[in-house]
Amino acid sequence: MTKKIAVLGAGSWGTALAMVLADNGHSVTLWGNKSELINDINEFHTNKRYLPEIELPHSLKATVELNEAVEDAKYILLVVPTKAIREVCQKLNPILKNKVTIIHASKGIEPDSSKRISEMISEEIDEKNLGSVVVLSGPSHAEEVALRHPTTVTSASANMEDARAVQELFSNGYFRVYTNEDVIGVEIGGALKNIIALAAGITDGLGYGDNAKAALMTRGLAEIIRLGKEMGANPQTFAGLTGMGDLIVTCTSVHSRNWRAGNLLGKGQSLDEVLENMGMVVEGVRTTKAAYQLAKQAKVEMPIVNELYAVLFEGKNPKLGVDALMNRDKRHEGESTSNFISDLTK
Amino acid sequence: MTKKIAVLGAGSWGTALAMVLADNGHSVTLWGNKSELINDINEFHTNKRYLPEIELPHSLKATVELNEAVEDAKYILLVVPTKAIREVCQKLNPILKNKVTIIHASKGIEPDSSKRISEMISEEIDEKNLGSVVVLSGPSHAEEVALRHPTTVTSASANMEDARAVQELFSNGYFRVYTNEDVIGVEIGGALKNIIALAAGITDGLGYGDNAKAALMTRGLAEIIRLGKEMGANPQTFAGLTGMGDLIVTCTSVHSRNWRAGNLLGKGQSLDEVLENMGMVVEGVRTTKAAYQLAKQAKVEMPIVNELYAVLFEGKNPKLGVDALMNRDKRHEGESTSNFISDLTK
Repeated sequence: MTKKIAVLGAGSWGTALAMVLADNGHSVTLWGNKSELINDINEFHTNKRYLPEIELPHSLKATVELNEAVEDAKYILLVVPTKAIREVCQKLNPILKNKVTIIHASKGIEPDSSKRISEMISEEIDEKNLGSVVVLSGPSHAEEVALRHPTTVTSASANMEDARAVQELFSNGYFRVYTNEDVIGVEIGGALKNIIALAAGITDGLGYGDNAKAALMTRGLAEIIRLGKEMGANPQTFAGLTGMGDLIVTCTSVHSRNWRAGNLLGKGQSLDEVLENMGMVVEGVRTTKAAYQLAKQAKVEMPIVNELYAVLFEGKNPKLGVDALMNRDKRHEGESTSNFISDLTK
Repeated sequence: MTKKIAVLGAGSWGTALAMVLADNGHSVTLWGNKSELINDINEFHTNKRYLPEIELPHSLKATVELNEAVEDAKYILLVVPTKAIREVCQKLNPILKNKVTIIHASKGIEPDSSKRISEMISEEIDEKNLGSVVVLSGPSHAEEVALRHPTTVTSASANMEDARAVQELFSNGYFRVYTNEDVIGVEIGGALKNIIALAAGITDGLGYGDNAKAALMTRGLAEIIRLGKEMGANPQTFAGLTGMGDLIVTCTSVHSRNWRAGNLLGKGQSLDEVLENMGMVVEGVRTTKAAYQLAKQAKVEMPIVNELYAVLFEGKNPKLGVDALMNRDKRHEGESTSNFISDLTK
């Protein structure tokens, strides 16, 4: 059945997800704040800046007016950078007239508050307007989804009925959606893999090769699980699409902006230069700060996060950071951070 | 302390490991059966065929005479294709004069017998000659080790004293060795990841992209763990370097010959054409047969192995095989094969 859906955020991922919904016959309005980009979508069916060379479904409408986008919408899909989440929610409050289901597909944790995105949404949206919050996450580069390449993601919510409704909204021949009730695990996995992708980019930028990167990723997942458990996640979630799957895709694909940012750092650029050159939000930078704070509070051992924090925020030479990780004095696999299942069975 | 070590097998991996040992000051003799290649190593310090453009340590000697290679050796490192293991062991028996530690760095399972490599070695080498068997495995492309890029591997043995001795032999600034007592898990992980790499190559060859490949790898590790548990492995091993780590490196690196073979299959070549074009052993083909037989006997669900078996040995169209995997009718992550830790905690 056709649903009216507002997609807030006209970056690459918001646009690609709007395409999936439009392909499924829903009535989709995409909201963004860059008027030239929005005009191009309406007039030429293209998002030149974030998804160049992709022809968008002609049924997909775009607007710069938030109230126009959300009018009569049953579902609001939020795909804005983590640091814009609260502001957009605050703007929604006076506009919303009925309870809506809010789906979000952003990946990050707020520094200082250490809040996950669903927590920020619940804090900001007035209770009378808020139905369920559902998270959509998984190994899914926007560029590939826009090309309708086979992709699998997870729809997670404390309310499984709504998780399944969102599964129905998005599912089609090239976009497969699984459900999961572990919102915390899904959000933590999606956020923290960006940290490991930054670190993987650095090792690649330093020319250390695939052997070193695979070891780093193996240990990285172990760190994510250790912190996730402390935050109340189900450790099993990290072995699935939104944990290991998303970690792999983000650390090994040329499409990943967090990997690309790390790669530039490894090649000698400063953080400021990198962020300027990227021209896109690099969520992993903020998430590193949040994870560093969380790990300290919870007394969780996170050597990769610690080294990356020192590189990003304390000016440590990236090569020295990676070398410190390689040379940690642990000798038996069971005592190393490379083995995460030992943490699960403790 | 300098040790006398024979390395049997002058392919890329045998040569790279011989380099590590020579770098560590050991007295290393590399054995191979191609006299031109062996002559080149002695005369020009190069292995043109398997490690072109790498200058080998000048202390590294090579020979075509097996008895010359193993004379007085305390350690024999076996790095020959799986199907040559028994034959080489049989040739060693009349030559060996004392008990030796046999290290192996080959990755495969014998079809029909379903034996792991350490089992084949124990069956073939006369008891009076055989000390421990130690397995060396992990995410380690030979090409990168030969360039002395940072690499971490695992030394596994039922005899931990010998596992640690082998750790000492190989460890240096660029080559880090962890120990592990789970020989079964280390051997199964190393062998079965080649199957998933073949499948990953097929999806890449079909142009399905990184999203699909990450989902496949996530499910692939789940299958490996299910079978490994049946064979007596410690499930935790699969979350470490020789499981997840090696799977990542083999599925995502251009150096991987199993991935390359799958990639050619995905692009439409027949298995016979692929094997002819590769000019190197593709262990994953034989291992697929062995895993298929094992899964049937043990009644373990292995959908990726089953589809790959049909593609390799029953002429199934690779696209139909991959599409069958993508469209399996499972909807909740917990019931899907993408979540392997649920298998661990049952």
